[in-house]
Amino acid sequence: MRIAIALFDRFTALDAVGPYEVLSRLPGAEVVFVGVEKRIFRTDIGALALLAGASFAEIDHADVLLVPGGPGTRAMMSDEALVGWVKRVHPTTQWTTSVCTGSLVLGAAGVLAGVDAVTHWGAMHELAALGANPVEERVVVRGKIVTAAGVSAGIDMGLTLAARLAGEDFAKAIQLGIEYDPQPPFDAGHPRKAAPEIVEIVARMALDRQQGSAAA
Amino acid sequence: MRIAIALFDRFTALDAVGPYEVLSRLPGAEVVFVGVEKRIFRTDIGALALLAGASFAEIDHADVLLVPGGPGTRAMMSDEALVGWVKRVHPTTQWTTSVCTGSLVLGAAGVLAGVDAVTHWGAMHELAALGANPVEERVVVRGKIVTAAGVSAGIDMGLTLAARLAGEDFAKAIQLGIEYDPQPPFDAGHPRKAAPEIVEIVARMALDRQQGSAAA
Repeated sequence: MRIAIALFDRFTALDAVGPYEVLSRLPGAEVVFVGVEKRIFRTDIGALALLAGASFAEIDHADVLLVPGGPGTRAMMSDEALVGWVKRVHPTTQWTTSVCTGSLVLGAAGVLAGVDAVTHWGAMHELAALGANPVEERVVVRGKIVTAAGVSAGIDMGLTLAARLAGEDFAKAIQLGIEYDPQPPFDAGHPRKAAPEIVEIVARMALDRQQGSAAA
Repeated sequence: MRIAIALFDRFTALDAVGPYEVLSRLPGAEVVFVGVEKRIFRTDIGALALLAGASFAEIDHADVLLVPGGPGTRAMMSDEALVGWVKRVHPTTQWTTSVCTGSLVLGAAGVLAGVDAVTHWGAMHELAALGANPVEERVVVRGKIVTAAGVSAGIDMGLTLAARLAGEDFAKAIQLGIEYDPQPPFDAGHPRKAAPEIVEIVARMALDRQQGSAAA
């Protein structure tokens, strides 16, 4: 079972690594990180670099295709290499998936036309322009298309997919293996739970990251 | 503020990337991944490779030192390069931290003598031999030593540290930024919640990974 995870410049690491940590533990999983070239790709913050072990040209099919998000996705929406790869591989998949603003890339590839989908809460307004129906759920499964909300939602999506691919017992075993018994010290993980001044801090942080000042 | 995250062969990716995703968003954060050499290090499963941007020889101090876990930690407990680096840098830190079996490396460096600490649930019996007092909590803060339970607990630890380093509002903003509003599809993240047959599946998986067969 081939799980192909796209890499590109200025992706968000946890978007890719959360689902990787879950799905790579499935029986028979063969995970491959794929980029426009076989090289390292740096995250949005620049301090972390992941290696793509294969190029888009080398990967023509996948059982699970995953596009992570990050500030880099806006540039990627018009990147023929990545968008063309999604268009080419999507018809071969069991599951075509995204985390965070990765769904904007799926949308740019025409995959979300008329499909319910989610993205990071701060980007929900961008989904409709791509033909998708924005749905405020953490993980949205519609046919073979699975989109997850922002960043950390990829872990929940990974477990949801693991249950479909290998059964609930195996998914639970993976959850136990990664000790995913979340106990965040605060309950501020969604705008409906966070005070307006917290939302304001995030907006400023996001702007900094989008402009790349945090990567300097 | 320098956050130094150790890399070594056969580490577990989410142990490092969970806290990275939180702590790298702190104001003034300078994250550096550090290994015995500046090269890529492969995870326990082998499919993912992260680049160490600095060598142990180059990093003499850190505000936050973090050791991730993984099957590789057992070999690392007698690795003079990593253990020596922890011994050297620990006196310079504000916070010395670990995720999952990374605490066994802290223990091997003598950092946990007489200190309450946690590790992955499957390795709790190994802590006492290192002089630590095993405590079954998700994140254990004792003085400047902070240990987290298995794999995904590093995200909760990251937020706990973020609050100490930059205040609760900023920690909440980071939680909101990574949309950490966990909704696992199952409630099997700790042995006290999982059925015995699920624990049995994990034990078999862990053995496979420890023996490296999953990396083949």
